[in-house]
Amino acid sequence: MDVALRRGLSLKTAFPFMISRRTLSLFWRCGAGKPWPPAPTGRRGAAAPHRHAHSGASEGTERSPSAAPERRPFSRLSEEDLAFFRETLPGGAITDPDLLEAHNIDWLKSVRGHGELLLRPQTTAQVSEILRYCNDRNLAVNPQGGNTGLVGGSVPVYDEIILSTALLNNILTFDPVSGILTCQAGCVLEGLSGYLEEQDFIMPLDLGAKGSCHIGGNVATNAGGLRLLRYGSLRGTVLGLEVVLADGRVLDCLSTLRKDNTGYDLKQLFIGSEGTLGVITAVSVLCPRKPSAVHVAFLGCQTFEQLLGTFKLCKGMLGEILSAFEFLDAACMGLLNTHLKLPNPITDCPFYIVIETSGSNSAHDEEKLHSFLEEAMTSSLVTDGTVASDDTKVKALWSMRERVTEALTHDGYTYKYDVSLPVEGLYQLVTATRDHLGSRAKNVVGYGHVGDGNLHLNVTSSGPDPSLQGAIEPFVYGWTAGVRGSVSAEHGLGLKKRNYIYYSKPRPAVALMGHIKTLMDPRGILNPYKTLPDDLD
Amino acid sequence: MDVALRRGLSLKTAFPFMISRRTLSLFWRCGAGKPWPPAPTGRRGAAAPHRHAHSGASEGTERSPSAAPERRPFSRLSEEDLAFFRETLPGGAITDPDLLEAHNIDWLKSVRGHGELLLRPQTTAQVSEILRYCNDRNLAVNPQGGNTGLVGGSVPVYDEIILSTALLNNILTFDPVSGILTCQAGCVLEGLSGYLEEQDFIMPLDLGAKGSCHIGGNVATNAGGLRLLRYGSLRGTVLGLEVVLADGRVLDCLSTLRKDNTGYDLKQLFIGSEGTLGVITAVSVLCPRKPSAVHVAFLGCQTFEQLLGTFKLCKGMLGEILSAFEFLDAACMGLLNTHLKLPNPITDCPFYIVIETSGSNSAHDEEKLHSFLEEAMTSSLVTDGTVASDDTKVKALWSMRERVTEALTHDGYTYKYDVSLPVEGLYQLVTATRDHLGSRAKNVVGYGHVGDGNLHLNVTSSGPDPSLQGAIEPFVYGWTAGVRGSVSAEHGLGLKKRNYIYYSKPRPAVALMGHIKTLMDPRGILNPYKTLPDDLD
Repeated sequence: MDVALRRGLSLKTAFPFMISRRTLSLFWRCGAGKPWPPAPTGRRGAAAPHRHAHSGASEGTERSPSAAPERRPFSRLSEEDLAFFRETLPGGAITDPDLLEAHNIDWLKSVRGHGELLLRPQTTAQVSEILRYCNDRNLAVNPQGGNTGLVGGSVPVYDEIILSTALLNNILTFDPVSGILTCQAGCVLEGLSGYLEEQDFIMPLDLGAKGSCHIGGNVATNAGGLRLLRYGSLRGTVLGLEVVLADGRVLDCLSTLRKDNTGYDLKQLFIGSEGTLGVITAVSVLCPRKPSAVHVAFLGCQTFEQLLGTFKLCKGMLGEILSAFEFLDAACMGLLNTHLKLPNPITDCPFYIVIETSGSNSAHDEEKLHSFLEEAMTSSLVTDGTVASDDTKVKALWSMRERVTEALTHDGYTYKYDVSLPVEGLYQLVTATRDHLGSRAKNVVGYGHVGDGNLHLNVTSSGPDPSLQGAIEPFVYGWTAGVRGSVSAEHGLGLKKRNYIYYSKPRPAVALMGHIKTLMDPRGILNPYKTLPDDLD
Repeated sequence: MDVALRRGLSLKTAFPFMISRRTLSLFWRCGAGKPWPPAPTGRRGAAAPHRHAHSGASEGTERSPSAAPERRPFSRLSEEDLAFFRETLPGGAITDPDLLEAHNIDWLKSVRGHGELLLRPQTTAQVSEILRYCNDRNLAVNPQGGNTGLVGGSVPVYDEIILSTALLNNILTFDPVSGILTCQAGCVLEGLSGYLEEQDFIMPLDLGAKGSCHIGGNVATNAGGLRLLRYGSLRGTVLGLEVVLADGRVLDCLSTLRKDNTGYDLKQLFIGSEGTLGVITAVSVLCPRKPSAVHVAFLGCQTFEQLLGTFKLCKGMLGEILSAFEFLDAACMGLLNTHLKLPNPITDCPFYIVIETSGSNSAHDEEKLHSFLEEAMTSSLVTDGTVASDDTKVKALWSMRERVTEALTHDGYTYKYDVSLPVEGLYQLVTATRDHLGSRAKNVVGYGHVGDGNLHLNVTSSGPDPSLQGAIEPFVYGWTAGVRGSVSAEHGLGLKKRNYIYYSKPRPAVALMGHIKTLMDPRGILNPYKTLPDDLD
């Protein structure tokens, strides 16, 4: 199978744009004579799973489903267009290739676009003018926040105009009674967190990219992160949005109300739509009070079953103060030791857990945590562990989880998968992938958010290796679909995963998404080639 | 002004269907020469507020915006149709007028439809067959859950076929590790709560109508209720839906995953759409663990400012264990005393608070609660109070809040308003309405969910009184729009409030809702005359 898969694949698969923008018109076939993507077969549209991994491509013309499709017939940027943008945004229409460089490459350096113009509006009215013009002129637009996405959704694919939210960076209001913040879309998450902490509040989300990511981008991609277990998803905490539609109309749903049942909740369409339905220009968010006590425990387990037992015990005994339940495996620990020289704070174990509690009374929280730990040790769920409450040690323990991504980048080229699975079988995919790849992979590691059923599966190799990628995909997606998981838990689909949508969504649902896209952006100018599969075009 | 408003109004305003189904084609005009509804004027589309209340109708032909529009040209039920339904649903196609009676009248007995056929499918496939047939035949359908809605959304307006979810009442799965429940749409909320409590879990929502309401109806109306402060809205806790679209296609988005970023979140369209976009047939919900300790405090305050001060203090000191912060005013207490003979458990005060804590450690919770109460009393925020932890007393204290609705029904005919307001000014609307109505109202009372910024404003009179209604509306809606509130916090728009949508949503947003309705239900057969305003037709 792998021989067959290798045939017809090239470096393009790993670097679909850095290597070549030439695209081929045939889909990668993944079943004997069956066209890709596969038709849904299960009741819930789960594409027939494992068999895809074991069927090979048969011709030399196939390309990866993650490669870019042909450039669509958008207009090319003209001198008249540039003159318009320079007049509309004095100083904010940038064409210097050196300045554009960082906006054309994604954070993973795996996707490169060829945008020739970067626009940096400062007001919603300017965003509206830009989009109205682009829609009239049929110019494609790539909305961009902090450009920290992992699925190639945040950079142009061809020559789309890059519309950056960087200068839409004002905090508008904050109400310390209700905890409701309104701000422009380009506010950096870490900046918002700092502002709120001074007022004894926190943002309901936190993630590794907080130093760069924009709140508008967080909302557009429905970012998950480390606090979701406690404070829920952005679908619950985002109370309102201001969005500019493809034709420049401003949709003002910037409500600051916890409850509002007047018609359809349009803002939900934009949350997680990756800039394909509109450009978010302002956000209102419900922010929780800053917990006065935070404790972190770093524990080791011998089996994943024991880890799950610990999770169950912890949900019962820590209850309302549990704010994170994360894990990493021994392979991750090896990378932390080797590449970052981070020593293991406890004895070596196959699995490690990071538990965080956040509460309003430190003494109560400590008592709860100690009762739980005693029970976990007594019942042999946990082999070893350490607990921290002072800031420095809390950060040190958290870094064992947070710096896995960084350690991976030192290990070589990384193939990243972000899947949702039933929590009971969360680790089986890591084992199955390891078995499936054998010696072809350098390392296969698993870590992630157990509390949310979200596994980060990463495979490293010494360099980009299309045959390895061909062995992983669609194996991982098929396996995930087989247990009714999601092929993208929190990273989104972007460019790279758009064609894998059928592994998690039934055809009628995807078709309806296409109709909604057509309704809201009839010319398709907003973030083209992203989120929706090519076969809808 | 009130003289002018009275002119042209009739009993139809209060009982738009019980009195007469004859409808008039002119809108009620509420501005000098300006057509109703008003165009949005504010940046966030808040309709110009108070002036509407002070401008009168000028002709004798106006009708209330809550009255039904003309019957749309749907087909009439034929003998062939009946034969089809009898064959499709053996025993489940009911035409007996006595059996239909309760399905044609809403819980408030304020709206009566004239449905001639009640269908009780047991499977999603049957719902699909029904809708495919109705769509082909252009027969209108009124999806109905427990028929506990308060805005006339749950009963037919004319002769729509009533499609009841009552027999779609199976629990499908429950996973005690993740706390995720999947069930059919017709499961009664109280039944689900009972099932979960046996397994040490609870439903994330609770409301007065729990003994009758269906979970599908809860989701379709985005029900709020008493636990929203703690567990968030259904937009966060509902993980998946199975929905039958207007043409009979089944949209299977019954995910049981906490995170899934694969395309647009279609299920959100159906949450709160009141059965106008599809019929929900199954639901998956994330359920919290049952708290092992529940405490309730019933407190009295001298001013609403002190009540707000108590809320702020309580959010800080009770933090993660706070699960409800509700209030009622002295007028509500008067009704409880008079009509239900419920004695005030504390000394008389202008305002009363019900605070509930839910936690995993009773001793810790008691300690937190007592520290908070000590501080609240010492700082004179609270005048008097009582605390309960045993079940009977907890229920007794809760009944002071929960039975206000019942007490109101004994006080006479009740005009009910359910608005979201900035929490600081929550009670000002009650005072303003009381001043505005003077002696025309029997009682004007305020109660509700302070923690969610949700006020229930109720006005009683000895019987239906269109002139009183004319004095309240659009006064209350205009006042609400003036502070950028929502004219329906949790009850929805249904039939009665559909034309008031512009007070809370800007025109472009409402227009987009109309486009989405047309996209998903091109013939408009699903719950016609509800949710969206008449001027979209």
